[in-house]
Amino acid sequence: MANTVYDVTTWTGTPYIDPHTDIGAVINQIIANIKANQTTQTTRPGAVIYIPPGHYNLLTRVVIDVSFLQIKGSGHGFLSEAIRDGSSTGSWTETLPGASHIQVMNTDGNLEAFLVSRTGDPNVVGRLNSIEFKDFCLDGVTDSKPYLPGNSKIGISVQSDNDSVRIEGMGFVYLAHAIIIKGADAPNITNNFIAECGNCIELTGASQVAKITNNFLISAWAGYSIYAENAEGPLITGNSILWAANITMNNCNRVTISSNKLLSNFPSMIALLGTCTENLISANHFRRVYGDGTSTRFDDLFGLVHLEGSNNTVTGNMFSFNVPAANITPAGANPTIVLVKSGDGNYLATNNIVSNVPTMVVLDASTTATRIIYSAKSGQFNPYTTNYSFIATP
Amino acid sequence: MANTVYDVTTWTGTPYIDPHTDIGAVINQIIANIKANQTTQTTRPGAVIYIPPGHYNLLTRVVIDVSFLQIKGSGHGFLSEAIRDGSSTGSWTETLPGASHIQVMNTDGNLEAFLVSRTGDPNVVGRLNSIEFKDFCLDGVTDSKPYLPGNSKIGISVQSDNDSVRIEGMGFVYLAHAIIIKGADAPNITNNFIAECGNCIELTGASQVAKITNNFLISAWAGYSIYAENAEGPLITGNSILWAANITMNNCNRVTISSNKLLSNFPSMIALLGTCTENLISANHFRRVYGDGTSTRFDDLFGLVHLEGSNNTVTGNMFSFNVPAANITPAGANPTIVLVKSGDGNYLATNNIVSNVPTMVVLDASTTATRIIYSAKSGQFNPYTTNYSFIATP
Amino acid sequence: MANTVYDVTTWTGTPYIDPHTDIGAVINQIIANIKANQTTQTTRPGAVIYIPPGHYNLLTRVVIDVSFLQIKGSGHGFLSEAIRDGSSTGSWTETLPGASHIQVMNTDGNLEAFLVSRTGDPNVVGRLNSIEFKDFCLDGVTDSKPYLPGNSKIGISVQSDNDSVRIEGMGFVYLAHAIIIKGADAPNITNNFIAECGNCIELTGASQVAKITNNFLISAWAGYSIYAENAEGPLITGNSILWAANITMNNCNRVTISSNKLLSNFPSMIALLGTCTENLISANHFRRVYGDGTSTRFDDLFGLVHLEGSNNTVTGNMFSFNVPAANITPAGANPTIVLVKSGDGNYLATNNIVSNVPTMVVLDASTTATRIIYSAKSGQFNPYTTNYSFIATP
Repeated sequence: MANTVYDVTTWTGTPYIDPHTDIGAVINQIIANIKANQTTQTTRPGAVIYIPPGHYNLLTRVVIDVSFLQIKGSGHGFLSEAIRDGSSTGSWTETLPGASHIQVMNTDGNLEAFLVSRTGDPNVVGRLNSIEFKDFCLDGVTDSKPYLPGNSKIGISVQSDNDSVRIEGMGFVYLAHAIIIKGADAPNITNNFIAECGNCIELTGASQVAKITNNFLISAWAGYSIYAENAEGPLITGNSILWAANITMNNCNRVTISSNKLLSNFPSMIALLGTCTENLISANHFRRVYGDGTSTRFDDLFGLVHLEGSNNTVTGNMFSFNVPAANITPAGANPTIVLVKSGDGNYLATNNIVSNVPTMVVLDASTTATRIIYSAKSGQFNPYTTNYSFIATP
Repeated sequence: MANTVYDVTTWTGTPYIDPHTDIGAVINQIIANIKANQTTQTTRPGAVIYIPPGHYNLLTRVVIDVSFLQIKGSGHGFLSEAIRDGSSTGSWTETLPGASHIQVMNTDGNLEAFLVSRTGDPNVVGRLNSIEFKDFCLDGVTDSKPYLPGNSKIGISVQSDNDSVRIEGMGFVYLAHAIIIKGADAPNITNNFIAECGNCIELTGASQVAKITNNFLISAWAGYSIYAENAEGPLITGNSILWAANITMNNCNRVTISSNKLLSNFPSMIALLGTCTENLISANHFRRVYGDGTSTRFDDLFGLVHLEGSNNTVTGNMFSFNVPAANITPAGANPTIVLVKSGDGNYLATNNIVSNVPTMVVLDASTTATRIIYSAKSGQFNPYTTNYSFIATP
Repeated sequence: MANTVYDVTTWTGTPYIDPHTDIGAVINQIIANIKANQTTQTTRPGAVIYIPPGHYNLLTRVVIDVSFLQIKGSGHGFLSEAIRDGSSTGSWTETLPGASHIQVMNTDGNLEAFLVSRTGDPNVVGRLNSIEFKDFCLDGVTDSKPYLPGNSKIGISVQSDNDSVRIEGMGFVYLAHAIIIKGADAPNITNNFIAECGNCIELTGASQVAKITNNFLISAWAGYSIYAENAEGPLITGNSILWAANITMNNCNRVTISSNKLLSNFPSMIALLGTCTENLISANHFRRVYGDGTSTRFDDLFGLVHLEGSNNTVTGNMFSFNVPAANITPAGANPTIVLVKSGDGNYLATNNIVSNVPTMVVLDASTTATRIIYSAKSGQFNPYTTNYSFIATP
C-alpha cells in the first residue's frame, strides 16, 4: 500500500497511542508523518486517513495544516441522542451513535474536534485546498436542547483561507457548532446528516460560491441551520432542513435557495438581514408548526421569510402555517409569512400561503416598489407603505 | 485492519461458504460475528462489509438486525437486461450486470435479498439506525415486463422502525420491488440507479422526512417510481424518473416534488390520492409519450397530475404531451393534464402545457376554490364546478 | 483480496512500470490483466483500480474497452492553477494539485488521458456499461486562458455507445476538454469539481436522459460549461456554474435546467440553438458581471438566455445584470436578458430582472405567440413582432 494511505487502527506512532483512547492525537501523529514525508512544494499530494467502524474518543484537537488530506470513515453512524436521552433505554440494543464514531471529549482545553488552520498570510504560504471529511460521525456525547451554548463543542472549524473544502456524507450530533468555515471559496457541503446541533453550518468572514446541497440539517431553536455573512453566490438546494429551520444570511448577495424542504417550530425560517440583494428563494416548501421548544428570539411578526435589502426574488414557494392561536406571539397577532422589512424592488410571485389562522404578507413603511403577484389574497396583505404593486391571489 | 472491516471474499466462516455460491449466507455469518464481538449497548458501532467486483449468487436472505452496518461494493454495475433480453447477444462482450453484482436467486423460500428487521418493540429494543447500502448491484436475474408481479423478488426491505437509513450509489435491476422501507424516519435515498423494476421505492406504514434525491428511477407500467402512504414531509428533488414515471402519494402531506425530470408512456405521473394536503409540485418537467407497454390502469382522463386533497401547490412546471390521437383512451377524449379531483384551495400557477392534441386542466364537481393562474388557456380549462378562480394563459 | 481489486502502486506488471512515471501504461496493463482473467460473456464483472494519493504522470493514454470498470482515488485534489500562475508562489506550501493526482502529459501523440472505446458495432459487441470514474484529479499541468484551444488536452473521452457511465467526485483542471461523452444513455455526472477548463461537459452525437447534478463547473470564455447536441431529456440541476457559465443546447429537446446558480462575465449563459423544443428553465439564478477575460463570441444583444425553437418554458428565475455601460457591446446598446430568437409558443413567467443599465426582453420578428407574463416591465420589453401576449411586471 502506498505510504499516503493511513488507517488509525494500524498506525504505530511514537509514542503509541490507542486510537480508541485519543484518535485526535493519533491523527496529529499521522499528519506529522505526512509532513515529514512530503517536503517540497511539488511533492505534497496529501494523504487519506481511514477510520474503520468503532467508537473512538477524541481528547486532543486535530490541527490540519496540509492540503489534500482526506479523512474518511465507513458511515455517518447517526443515532438520535435527543430521543435516547428522553427514553427509557435499558433494553435498547445500541445507545451510542456508531459506524466510524468519534466522541468529542477534548481534555486539551480546546473546543474543536478538527481545526483546519495554517500559520501565515495565505497569499504568502498559500491557501488550504481540497481538504475532505467523508463518512464518519462527530458526536459531542452529552448536550441539552437547544445546544447553544450547550456543550460549546465544535465539530469542524476551518479558520484559514481555503479552497474547495469538501464535507460529504458526515454525521454530526450534539455539537454546539457542527461546521464553521471562515474565508471559504467553493466549499462543497453535501449529503451530510447534521442533527441535534446548535448551529449546523456557519460561513464566517466572507465566502464565495459555497455549495450546500442534499443535506439533512436539523438544528434547535437557539441557532442556525445555515448562517452566512458577507457571502457571495452560495447555492442551497435539495436540503431537508428541520426542527427549527433557520437560514440566516447577513449582508449576503446573489444567494440561491431552491427546492428545499423547511420545517420549523419557530419564525425566521429564512432571514436576509442587513443589506441583502438579488437573492432568489424559489420552489421551496415551508412548514411552520408548534411543538418542541420555546424561544423569544423571534415573534410571529418577524416573518417565516424576512427580507432586508433590495431586489430579492421569492417565487413558486409553498407556505404551510399551522400554529394554535393560543401559541402565537404577540397574543392576538396575525402571523407574518413574508416580511419585507426594507429595501426597494423586491419581487414576490406565485407563492401559495395556507394557514389555520389569518396570516399576512407585510411591507414595512420604509420599503419601496415591492411587487406582490399572486402571493397573497387581499385580506392577507398588510402594507405600511403605498409604494408597491399588488396583484391579489383570487 | 480493524475487526470491524470485513470482505466477503476473505471471510472464512464455519462452515466455509464460497461467497460466489451464496453471498447471503456469508453476510449472515459475518453479521453473527459482529454480534458475537459487539456485546453491550455502548460497544456496538457496527461494521463495514465489502463486496469486491464479482458475480455473487444470493441463495439465502440476509437479515440485518444491527445498526450502523455498511454494506459496500465498488460499483452499481447496471446493464440493461431488458435490452439484452430483446437483442441478439451472441457476440456481446458482457451479458450480465457487473461490478459488485449480486444475483438474487433465493432458494430459502424468501423473496428478499436483504431484510432489515429486529425482533421486539422498537420503543423497548431501539430502532435500527444508519444502516447503509452503497455501490453494489442487486439483480433479479430473470424477469419480464412490467415486472409486477414478475419474479416477485425484493431487493431491500426494511420492516422495523428505522432512522437515517442510507441507500446510495446502488444499482437495482429486474426486481419486483427494489426498495421497501416501512416506518422510515429520515431515510436518505440518493444517487441510485434503479431500473427495469416493478416498483422502485416504496415507503410503507408511515414515514417522516424521507429524502429521495439525484436518482435514476426507471419502472414499468404496473408499479410505481415512488409510492408512499401516510408520509409527512418527503423531499423528492433532482431525480430522473422514466419510462412509466409514477409518483403516488397516498394520504401524504407536505411533500416537496421539485426539479425532477419525469417521462412516461402512461397517465398518473404524479398522483396524490386520498387526502393529501399542502404538497408542492414545482419546477418539474413532465413528458408524456406513447410507446412501449400497455396498461388499462389509468385512462387519459386520470391526469398526468392527479390531485385529491386540499391546498396543494403546482407551480412553474412544464407539461409536454405527445400521444397519437388513436392511442388515447377513452377514444376521442381530450387528455387531462391536471385533474383536481377533490379538495379545497388547490393552487396552480405558471404551468405551461404543450400538446399535440387538445388537452385539459379539469376540476371535479366536488372541488372548491381552486385557483388556476396562467396554467391553461381558455380552451384548455374544463371545470365541472363554478367554485374556482381562473386566469387564462393568453 | 479478490483479484478484481487493483492498486496502481502495488501492481507489478511485465515490464514493471512505476505508476508515478506513467500511470496510463500501468492502468493499461491492469486492463489487459482483467481481460485475461475474465474471458466469457457471463464472467466479466469488471474490476476496481485504486489510485492512492500521490502525484502520477500519465504519458500513455488509457483505453477502456471493458464494462463495469471503476477507477477510484481518494480525493479530487483541486488547486487553482490559474491563481497559482498569477501569483508569487515562492513560499507556498503546495503548488500542485494533489490527492490522487494525475498529470496529463501524453507522450504517445494522443490528446486523451482516458479514452473509453470498444471496437465493433455496439449492436453486435454490446454497449459499454457502468464505467465509473471517482474521486481523483485529472490535471493538464500547463495551460493559459481561455483554455481553448489551449493545451488541447482531454480528460475523459467516451467514444463508443455507452450506458450509465458514472463520473463522480472527480477534479479536472487545465484541460481543453474535461469530459466528452458521445452516444450517452443515462450518464450520471455528479458532485465533480471541474475548473479552469475550456469545456467542462460535452455530450456529442445524440444522448438520452443525461443527469448532470451537484457539480461545480468553472469554464472560461471560449468554451462551454455544458454543451449538448441532439440530446433528449437531460436533467441539469443543483450545479454551481461559474466564470463564463455557458450551457449550450444544440437541437435538444425536453431539457430540464432547474435550481442552478450561474455566473458569467459574458452573454449566452443558456443558449438553445437550432430547433430546441419544450425545454424548461426554472428556479435558476443568473448573475452577469464584467471582469476577467475578453471575447467577441457574443455581444450583449445575444441574451443571457437565448431561445431558438418552440414551446420552451422559462419560469421563476432571477436575473441580475451588472456591467459598466462602457463595457457593453455594441456600444450604447441595451443588453438583452432573454432573446426569443425564433419559434412559436415560448412561455416566460414570473422571472425577475435587476440591472444597473436598461435591459430588455426581446422577441425576434420571426417569433409567434410568445407569452411574457410578469417577466419584464413595459420599458424592458422589446418585441419586433406583434404576435405575442405580454403582461407587464408592474
